[in-house]
Amino acid sequence: MTAFRKSDFPLSEVRQHLETGPIVLVTSAWQGETNIMTMGWHMMMQFSPALFGCYIWSANHSYELIHNSQQCVINVPTVELVDQVVAVGNSSGGAIDKFAQFDLTAAPAEQVKAPLIKECYANFECKLFDSNLIREYGLFVWEVVKAHVATSVKNPKTLHYRGQGKFMVAGETLDLRDQFRPQNL
Amino acid sequence: MTAFRKSDFPLSEVRQHLETGPIVLVTSAWQGETNIMTMGWHMMMQFSPALFGCYIWSANHSYELIHNSQQCVINVPTVELVDQVVAVGNSSGGAIDKFAQFDLTAAPAEQVKAPLIKECYANFECKLFDSNLIREYGLFVWEVVKAHVATSVKNPKTLHYRGQGKFMVAGETLDLRDQFRPQNL
Repeated sequence: MTAFRKSDFPLSEVRQHLETGPIVLVTSAWQGETNIMTMGWHMMMQFSPALFGCYIWSANHSYELIHNSQQCVINVPTVELVDQVVAVGNSSGGAIDKFAQFDLTAAPAEQVKAPLIKECYANFECKLFDSNLIREYGLFVWEVVKAHVATSVKNPKTLHYRGQGKFMVAGETLDLRDQFRPQNL
Repeated sequence: MTAFRKSDFPLSEVRQHLETGPIVLVTSAWQGETNIMTMGWHMMMQFSPALFGCYIWSANHSYELIHNSQQCVINVPTVELVDQVVAVGNSSGGAIDKFAQFDLTAAPAEQVKAPLIKECYANFECKLFDSNLIREYGLFVWEVVKAHVATSVKNPKTLHYRGQGKFMVAGETLDLRDQFRPQNL
């Protein structure tokens, strides 16, 4: 597996990697414990500051780590990691160390304690922006405070969950920039 | 363009068509006026009842129609409609009838007044479930009350916006059902 080299990425453009609806791996850390969960229910909510909302079920082992630390990292895997994506989703961090078990490499983040996954081409460090929607909807509203994206990856082959065990893999890219009104890009 | 034949689709499975993050066309109706807008910031929020959240900017002409009627239809286009997707996003319903202008066909919905777009392979009729997050986040929480999906479309080539005028088109499908724990499907 590739451990990508990354550079800083502008926070106002994180939609380029999240708006398409990829399955992501959410990492967390609390009191010396780290964990990873697979997550697919999320959306961009604002450009600047970059807000990102996601649903986290309270029964997930990661929920307590994320809820207590009020931090996480959103890591975006590509198709090479599909077995890890499924295995992470199948298992509970209460029983195993998912980094060791699934050959994923933790790297320190800059602004949060949750680790980056080196094998994911993009990593977004997040701090909790609003906790008011957690109780009713399990909806965490995050501010993305630091973004790392691999410079070598132009059109990432991200995974998009269709339910029933099926993933759609990102296909070709159409560049229709010339058809857009500039303010709508 | 294809005007798809559709059948009823189970509401608890609408995630199969929305969780992957497609660009959608939102239709609305209010006091005899209808409109269409292009929208990409959305997420599944609950299985049953099927809840779906989306961000709608108050400056959009559709905002008033949607806000007043408390209804909409989420129509999912495929790559054949990419020119319409861009054109709808470029224009304002205050000036033109987007159905006529862009050769899209309105069909009556069953439970809401907003029309279905026949050329979209899937249509989800929505009623407003929670208006409390609109003021702060522009976030409409919808209950999907009726779903129509084309039976002929197995792996829809949906459009996924990457920003900067680029769309990712849905690629191949991987069926990893055998690797999933049944309760995680």
